[in-house]
Amino acid sequence: MSTEPEQEVTGTISWPHPEVVDDLARLRRTAPLTHCITNIVVTNFTANILLAAGASPAMVVTIEEVADFVKIAQALLINVGTITTIDAAVMLKAAATAQQTNTPWVLDPVAAGALKFRTDIIAELIKFKPTVIRGNASEILAVSGFEGGGKGVDSTASSIDAIPAARQLALMTGAVVALSGEVDYITDGKEVIAIPGGHEIMTKVTGIGCSLGALIAAFLPVSETPLRASSTASAIFAAAGSRAFQKAHGTGSFSVEFLDQLSTIGLV
Amino acid sequence: MSTEPEQEVTGTISWPHPEVVDDLARLRRTAPLTHCITNIVVTNFTANILLAAGASPAMVVTIEEVADFVKIAQALLINVGTITTIDAAVMLKAAATAQQTNTPWVLDPVAAGALKFRTDIIAELIKFKPTVIRGNASEILAVSGFEGGGKGVDSTASSIDAIPAARQLALMTGAVVALSGEVDYITDGKEVIAIPGGHEIMTKVTGIGCSLGALIAAFLPVSETPLRASSTASAIFAAAGSRAFQKAHGTGSFSVEFLDQLSTIGLV
Amino acid sequence: MSTEPEQEVTGTISWPHPEVVDDLARLRRTAPLTHCITNIVVTNFTANILLAAGASPAMVVTIEEVADFVKIAQALLINVGTITTIDAAVMLKAAATAQQTNTPWVLDPVAAGALKFRTDIIAELIKFKPTVIRGNASEILAVSGFEGGGKGVDSTASSIDAIPAARQLALMTGAVVALSGEVDYITDGKEVIAIPGGHEIMTKVTGIGCSLGALIAAFLPVSETPLRASSTASAIFAAAGSRAFQKAHGTGSFSVEFLDQLSTIGLV
Repeated sequence: MSTEPEQEVTGTISWPHPEVVDDLARLRRTAPLTHCITNIVVTNFTANILLAAGASPAMVVTIEEVADFVKIAQALLINVGTITTIDAAVMLKAAATAQQTNTPWVLDPVAAGALKFRTDIIAELIKFKPTVIRGNASEILAVSGFEGGGKGVDSTASSIDAIPAARQLALMTGAVVALSGEVDYITDGKEVIAIPGGHEIMTKVTGIGCSLGALIAAFLPVSETPLRASSTASAIFAAAGSRAFQKAHGTGSFSVEFLDQLSTIGLV
Repeated sequence: MSTEPEQEVTGTISWPHPEVVDDLARLRRTAPLTHCITNIVVTNFTANILLAAGASPAMVVTIEEVADFVKIAQALLINVGTITTIDAAVMLKAAATAQQTNTPWVLDPVAAGALKFRTDIIAELIKFKPTVIRGNASEILAVSGFEGGGKGVDSTASSIDAIPAARQLALMTGAVVALSGEVDYITDGKEVIAIPGGHEIMTKVTGIGCSLGALIAAFLPVSETPLRASSTASAIFAAAGSRAFQKAHGTGSFSVEFLDQLSTIGLV
Repeated sequence: MSTEPEQEVTGTISWPHPEVVDDLARLRRTAPLTHCITNIVVTNFTANILLAAGASPAMVVTIEEVADFVKIAQALLINVGTITTIDAAVMLKAAATAQQTNTPWVLDPVAAGALKFRTDIIAELIKFKPTVIRGNASEILAVSGFEGGGKGVDSTASSIDAIPAARQLALMTGAVVALSGEVDYITDGKEVIAIPGGHEIMTKVTGIGCSLGALIAAFLPVSETPLRASSTASAIFAAAGSRAFQKAHGTGSFSVEFLDQLSTIGLV
C-alpha cells in the first residue's frame, strides 16, 4: 500500500475557522436531539460531551423503542464497542429505520477486524448507508478491506497511512469517512480535510474517540454537509484538547478540563 | 389547564433548614443501603452521589437476585431511563417485592409519554405504589394523564405549570411527587413545598436529576415523611449546585465541585 | 476464629519499593492488553484507571466474542458486581478459556455470600483457577467458607481479621488472595505482604476496589509472580490515594486527583 498522503490532503481546518464557529453557534441554538446507541464504557462521558457542546443526547437502547426514537431524533450514533447479541438486533433496527427516515447517522466500527462477530454486524450495518463512518486507522483499514491489525480498541497504524483506505471506503459506501489519529483526516472520497491539533493525552482517556463520533452525529443536522459536520466536530475536539492539556496535571484533570473547554469554547 | 401556582405553594425549604441539616446528619450516621436499578448512563455518577452524601449505594440488577436484595435494602430506586426488555421484568419484580416488604421506593419515569413501551411499564410500576415519583414537568404531565410533550429526556414544560398535575398524581397514587425544574416542587397532593436555588448548569451535566431520585430514596428510611425526604434531598442538591457553580469553569469542573460540595456540606 | 495477625505478616511493601517502580516502568513500556468483564457501575472508571497507569483496557462482553478475545488479551479481569443471567455465561466461558490458554486472570467476587445466585457462579468460576482473587474482608470470608456478613458491596469486617481466611483460600485454590481494607494484605498462603497507606476517602468513591482488581490483572503479565503483581498494584494505589487526598477538597476532586497521580507517579 504505497501512498503519497501529502498530495492527497486538499484542505486543513482548525478552530476558529468561521464555518466551525458558525456551526457550533447553530448547534447551541438548536440543541439537536442525538440518539446514541453506544458502548457501556462511554455512555456517561458521551452524554456529558454532547451536553457540554450544546446538543441534546438520549440513549434509547431497547428493541421495542429504538425505531420510534430514531424517528423522533435528529441524528443517530451507532458505536459497536461493547456489542452484545441483543445490541446487534437493536443496532440493525436503528440503522434500517435511519435509512428509511433519512435520519443522518454515524457508524463507529470499534475494533473492526479484530473479532468476527462485530465485523460481520458492521458489514450488515454499512448496508444501511451510514452518513459518516468514524474510526482509527486500524478500524478504517479493516472496514475498507485493506489489511487491519488493531490491538483491541487501539490503532496500531498511523492515520496518515490509512488515507487511501479511507478514500476508497468513502467511494464504496457513499459515507464520509472520519479517520482519527495524531492528525484527523475527513474525506468524502474526493476531498481530504486535515484537522491538526489535539494532544496525545487524548488517547489516555477512554471515550474521546467514541464521543467524537457522537459529536459528529450531533452536527449532521446543523452543518451543510457531512464533510463539514465531521470537520467541525473534529476541529472543536482538537482545539478543546490542546487547551485542556495546557491546564491539566494528568489524565483525570484532562477529562475535566476537556469538558470545561468544550462547554465554553467560543463563548466569552 | 389554567393554574394559579403561586397560591398552591404552601411552604419553601432551603439549606440550612434545621430539618434538612438533621436528616443529613442521620443519613451520614446510618448510611442507608440504597438499591438502585437505574439507567446505564448514570450508574457511576449515581453511586458517587450517594457515597458523597453519605449513603451506601448498591446496584443489583438481575432477576435471580433482585427480590432478595430489595429485602436487604432500606430503600429502592427504579429509573427507567435506558430500560430494556430484560430490565422491565427486573423492575416489576423489584417493585412488587418493595410493596410486599414495605421497602420505601422511588420511581423515576424518565421520558414517560415519549415512548409507548416504557410508558406502559411505568403504568404497571405505579400499581406497586411507589413512595415517591420524581420527574421533570413533561414526565409528570405525562404520568398524571395531563398532556406531556417531552423532547427525549428533557422537559419542554416549566415545573411551575405542572404543579396541578403533580398534585393530582399524588392524590391518585398516594405517592409524594417530586417535580424537578428551575424551582423544584414537592407535593403529597395537599402541601406543595417549593425548593428554590440550584443553577441552570445542572441541566448540562447528565444524571443530576436521576441521582436526585436516588438521593430521595436514600433519605426515605431516615426522614420522618416522604415529603420531608424529598424536600431534604432537593434542598441539599440546590445548595450544592449553587455553591458548585460559583467555583466551576465549565460543565466538567461543575460535576467535580458538585460532588465535593455534597461530600462536605454541613461538615466543619 | 482466633487470629494473631501481627505474626502472620511476613513483609511490607510501599512505594517507591524498587520492584514496584520497575514493574510500573515495564507496564508502561508494554501496555498489556487487559480484558475487563466488569460491572456497569465502574466500566468507565476502570478503563480510565488502566489507561492512567499505562495499560491498555478492553471490554469485550458478548458470548460470541469473549473466548476469542481472552486469547488475544494478556490478562483478564472478571468482576461479578452487577452480574446478570447473560453475564454469567460470558464469565464462565471467559474463565474456562483463560484456564485453557494460561491467560492470567483476576476474580473479583463482589458481594459474595450476600446473594445466592452470584455466590454459586463465583464457586463455578473458582474451578477455572483464577490467578488472583481480590476482595474485601467480607467477600474473602464468604468465598473461603468462613462466616461472611457483607452489607451490599461494603465490608463489615476488618481486613486484618480476614488474614487467616485469605491464607486458607489461597492454599485451597492456588490463587494469590488480595485482601483490601484499611491495610491491604496479599498472600499466596505462605507469605503475607502488608500494603499500608491509602486513605479512608477511597471507600467514598465507587470503583476504587474494582479498578484495583483490574490493575492487578494488568500487572500479571509484567510482574515476576502473582504475589508481586498484586502487591505492586496495591502499593501504587496506596501511594496515589495518599497523595490525591492531600490535594482533594471532597470526593469529586479526589477521583480526579487519583487519576492524575496514577498517570504521573514515578515520572518527572
